[in-house]
Amino acid sequence: MPVNHRITLAERPVNRPVQPTDFRLEEAPIPVPATGEVLLRTLYLSLDPYMRGRMSEAKSYAQPVQIGEVMIGETVSEVVASNDPTFVPGDTVLGRTGWQEYAALPAKGLIKVDGKAAPLSYYLGVLGMPGMTGYFALLDIGQPKPGETVLVSAAAGAVGQVVGQIAKLKGCRVIGIAGGADKCAYVTKDLGFDAAIDYRGKDATALSAEIAALAPNGVDVYFDNVGGAIHDAAMMNVALRARIIICGAVAIYDKLETQDTGARWMRTILAKRARMEGFLVFDYDPRRAEFLADMSAWLRGGLVHYREDVTEGLARAPEAFIGMLAGKNLGKQLIHVADPSGS
Amino acid sequence: MPVNHRITLAERPVNRPVQPTDFRLEEAPIPVPATGEVLLRTLYLSLDPYMRGRMSEAKSYAQPVQIGEVMIGETVSEVVASNDPTFVPGDTVLGRTGWQEYAALPAKGLIKVDGKAAPLSYYLGVLGMPGMTGYFALLDIGQPKPGETVLVSAAAGAVGQVVGQIAKLKGCRVIGIAGGADKCAYVTKDLGFDAAIDYRGKDATALSAEIAALAPNGVDVYFDNVGGAIHDAAMMNVALRARIIICGAVAIYDKLETQDTGARWMRTILAKRARMEGFLVFDYDPRRAEFLADMSAWLRGGLVHYREDVTEGLARAPEAFIGMLAGKNLGKQLIHVADPSGS
Repeated sequence: MPVNHRITLAERPVNRPVQPTDFRLEEAPIPVPATGEVLLRTLYLSLDPYMRGRMSEAKSYAQPVQIGEVMIGETVSEVVASNDPTFVPGDTVLGRTGWQEYAALPAKGLIKVDGKAAPLSYYLGVLGMPGMTGYFALLDIGQPKPGETVLVSAAAGAVGQVVGQIAKLKGCRVIGIAGGADKCAYVTKDLGFDAAIDYRGKDATALSAEIAALAPNGVDVYFDNVGGAIHDAAMMNVALRARIIICGAVAIYDKLETQDTGARWMRTILAKRARMEGFLVFDYDPRRAEFLADMSAWLRGGLVHYREDVTEGLARAPEAFIGMLAGKNLGKQLIHVADPSGS
Repeated sequence: MPVNHRITLAERPVNRPVQPTDFRLEEAPIPVPATGEVLLRTLYLSLDPYMRGRMSEAKSYAQPVQIGEVMIGETVSEVVASNDPTFVPGDTVLGRTGWQEYAALPAKGLIKVDGKAAPLSYYLGVLGMPGMTGYFALLDIGQPKPGETVLVSAAAGAVGQVVGQIAKLKGCRVIGIAGGADKCAYVTKDLGFDAAIDYRGKDATALSAEIAALAPNGVDVYFDNVGGAIHDAAMMNVALRARIIICGAVAIYDKLETQDTGARWMRTILAKRARMEGFLVFDYDPRRAEFLADMSAWLRGGLVHYREDVTEGLARAPEAFIGMLAGKNLGKQLIHVADPSGS
């Protein structure tokens, strides 16, 4: 009889990196869907940096995962049993079932996805939350104009690669910041960024000098996925009326319980009349169709490229997650949990 | 024969408060206007916090005053001789003649002001740069909506008093932060703010608790004239989608040469999807008429009140300026230099 393998939060990483013992692999009975619910079997699990934040008790926009609870996460799943007229077995859906093989969820809130229109895994990346983040944050908050210089950190990440490519489509000059020569080569050679900076082993002053050399007229849009020293280096180079999108803070995730301190850029913000704004993709759920239409067309037309880094098997999720936080993946990090039953 | 008394920058205050010996009172010949220029006699000199910034060599939006140069400043002056068809002797104008009794300036760039429509000194305050700053920064960047909570620091200052009163006109709940019981009473009793917080002797945590008690649903618009601990206290209380206007940084003016360090609020900005934006009034010069029409009507209708703190004689400008930076004035700080010749 099949069981539900699932991974729970065993311990909170407090002011330190995540380690494998922070997670526990458990077996549980396969849940039974109530009326209005469906039983889902996970096909792909998305691993995303924001999950580090949810392992912490620090106050943020969402509730933390509790000790002993299944780790949260977006998945593409197959409906294996349905107690709701909206879905039939075999349907594939986007849901938030977390790090487990099976889940029973209310049908309401699940989004049908079409494996014929695009690979199912894409709905967790370029056609999903990271893609939508890059799309709306860049276009709505960044408001990039042709000829402007766009700087994006974590450039080879799931969000960063989308941001840079859309900025190129909008006629901008794009500089990516990434860790290591492979990622820098990926964003310039494969994705068409104009330049890339390898941040490894460099402090804010050194990074600032590299940005200044590549963007002598300053940075018009800074898409901040990381915070920390890279943020400082970007702030040293903002152009008049720069837009700074605060989208992530990977660099400070290991100190979530501590107030981040360091250089404050109020005088720069004032003198440059810069705008700094926070972005959360959930606010844009009502505009998902708009994003899907554009991004699907760009993918079909070969205008946007997309790369995944797929790890096999739910049990390896902790290892893959820790690797991703350390920047070891190249492309969107996914866990392949199972194949659709029809395949 | 009359001479031109003027006050020059003698020494830069580097990481310390301004002191009287940073200035030098000099005598110079009265300048002779060239073709296209007018000779101006200063009636009122405005003293404003931004002047502290211009005494520093630290990079900002404008060139610093050089050692030996006349201190910069806005004035209302009388035309005493004109080599330009636009002006005749007796005209009163707004100009940037600085801390001196006479100046010869190109007619272009001077703005005629009407002493019958409003007291001449008002064009340096509620009808001038500080009023225009409060008006456009609050309305354009702050975008206050009825029922929202607006928090303004340096609330009794030339900008702050305008901000709070306009916010009240727009139907907001307004909390002012000011130094001392007199100023707090002024903004609540005379200007109609809903509440005031005396920041003296309190750290960011204590200030945050007072803000939280007065704004249990958070601060929707924070108008930041000061930076430092008050900024931190405000950031601890921002509501979802708060707008933070970075307009001044009086609290850190004595450390202009040092990078301001302290708590960084990236995670708050992200979680609250807050927007932080710098404001410089010069950008709004083309929209001056719009401001003047509204503000003049509000003053005439008794909807906006305005208070000045006038010091007699140019020689006392350094003392008045140092007092203003320490918050000793109540109302817009002016120097009355001379009366119009007709009066």
